[in-house]
Amino acid sequence: MQQIAVEPDCWRRPRLVAAVEAAGAQVVAPDEATALVWADPQNPEAFPRLLHAQIDWVQLPYAGIDPFLHMLDNDRIWTCGKGVYAQPVAEAALGMVLAGFRHLAAYARETTWTAPVGQNLHGANVVILGGGGITEELVPLLVPFGCHVTVLRRTPNAFPGADSTRTLADLHRVLPGADAVFIALALTPETQHVISAPELALMKQSAWIVNVARGGHIDTSALISALRNESIGGAALDVTEPEPLPEGHPLWALPNCLITPHVANTPEMGLELLARRVTSNVERYLTGQDLLGPVDTRAGY
Amino acid sequence: MQQIAVEPDCWRRPRLVAAVEAAGAQVVAPDEATALVWADPQNPEAFPRLLHAQIDWVQLPYAGIDPFLHMLDNDRIWTCGKGVYAQPVAEAALGMVLAGFRHLAAYARETTWTAPVGQNLHGANVVILGGGGITEELVPLLVPFGCHVTVLRRTPNAFPGADSTRTLADLHRVLPGADAVFIALALTPETQHVISAPELALMKQSAWIVNVARGGHIDTSALISALRNESIGGAALDVTEPEPLPEGHPLWALPNCLITPHVANTPEMGLELLARRVTSNVERYLTGQDLLGPVDTRAGY
Repeated sequence: MQQIAVEPDCWRRPRLVAAVEAAGAQVVAPDEATALVWADPQNPEAFPRLLHAQIDWVQLPYAGIDPFLHMLDNDRIWTCGKGVYAQPVAEAALGMVLAGFRHLAAYARETTWTAPVGQNLHGANVVILGGGGITEELVPLLVPFGCHVTVLRRTPNAFPGADSTRTLADLHRVLPGADAVFIALALTPETQHVISAPELALMKQSAWIVNVARGGHIDTSALISALRNESIGGAALDVTEPEPLPEGHPLWALPNCLITPHVANTPEMGLELLARRVTSNVERYLTGQDLLGPVDTRAGY
Repeated sequence: MQQIAVEPDCWRRPRLVAAVEAAGAQVVAPDEATALVWADPQNPEAFPRLLHAQIDWVQLPYAGIDPFLHMLDNDRIWTCGKGVYAQPVAEAALGMVLAGFRHLAAYARETTWTAPVGQNLHGANVVILGGGGITEELVPLLVPFGCHVTVLRRTPNAFPGADSTRTLADLHRVLPGADAVFIALALTPETQHVISAPELALMKQSAWIVNVARGGHIDTSALISALRNESIGGAALDVTEPEPLPEGHPLWALPNCLITPHVANTPEMGLELLARRVTSNVERYLTGQDLLGPVDTRAGY
């Protein structure tokens, strides 16, 4: 019988144990297990260095699996939380672009009635970097605003709901027309600092950038310059480099920057969504179906 | 040939002159005009006391025409900006509820990386007070979030897109289930302080209230108590009582309150929308079609 370990012991574990049991599997110690559900997205040092040969499947908790990259192997199937968290993250991304366009962060800091400023999302030109789960959830939220949506992805296959689909090689061609730029990419060596000084220089003076992916996608120093010079409208960042952003970091003080502490998907929101994915995947595992969220161990996501 | 005056000289005039010309009409001095587009919503004293008999149409700029009521006559057609401004107001309302649910105002005031909090709009129970233009624009923005939408209006005729339509008499029955309450009503003696202590007491501890209508719809003292006691989740207010909200007013200091200075539709946004309406109406005027936004001179709106 296939038995599943849920490790390490942490606040997420009880809910994930319940999720495994809800699928009809038994939760056992790692030694006896044929599969491992890993409950902690943050502490890779707790992860077993060597997985014994009987473990033919590992479920990682988050969509971003950068801390575990060095452990990936081809001796078993690896799955992650990709696609699970996309809905709350897309919702947060929409809230962040509206907060930017409507200067909500600046207004929130006021203690007096100030002058009217703001721009409309209705009819805006939106560029989304990445064609994954977040973009799948974000595009439908933009549809009722009549936005013109350009998706930049690895392959230029038409993205459902987008007005235009191109590859990242076209980034410099689409940036000058963008009112809002969303980063919803995986972080890889190719996408590290995908937004740096040359990209910021191409953006409209009114354009906002929204990052709900990884801090490393943006060159922070270049962004600080652009925000200080007001060469772009502003930035709404749920992720930063460094992260957590230290006290006293210049980004905190910029009036055209909204920072949220990596909460597009809070742990509480996320655990519930992950638990549902774990139940589905355990059911699939028990019945020999393809698992959801497989990691491409070569690509690293 | 029909010729149109655009008066008085103010910052809005050049854009409205362009809007008239875009429809193919000629802009002339008032003496030679057969129609008048009035560009200033605020200074009725500048408005001509007597309109000469050749002027058979007057376009006023805003939806609320209270400053011009005493000038209305039945010697010509009067139109106003009604229906023009609902789209940006609905957009702002969505941004405000997301800002509330995701604690963006509180995060915007931080200068350090704080704990994750937030709730999802996806699947939330939404109650909207009012069944006018703002609600017409807001409901489609909520659809992709899978919200359960209840509209309270004067008559319980099913509101398009709402899951449930009731009258304001049902307010106390629907408030306990609401995750978000939007106020999008006209202010009348019946709707003054429609949200007071009893209504706030019925709301969930996590519920947010969003006001994009008039400050007088909420009893400010009762709201302050509810926010201080954290008996509701928070309030996002684009309008206040008093307005402008004076410096030092307790609402400014509450962590669960986001205040924007009546900017759901800023003058710049509004001018662009008004300009499009003016172009449409001039085209209709030139071709003898019914004009958009006619004022009922007896009802005064």
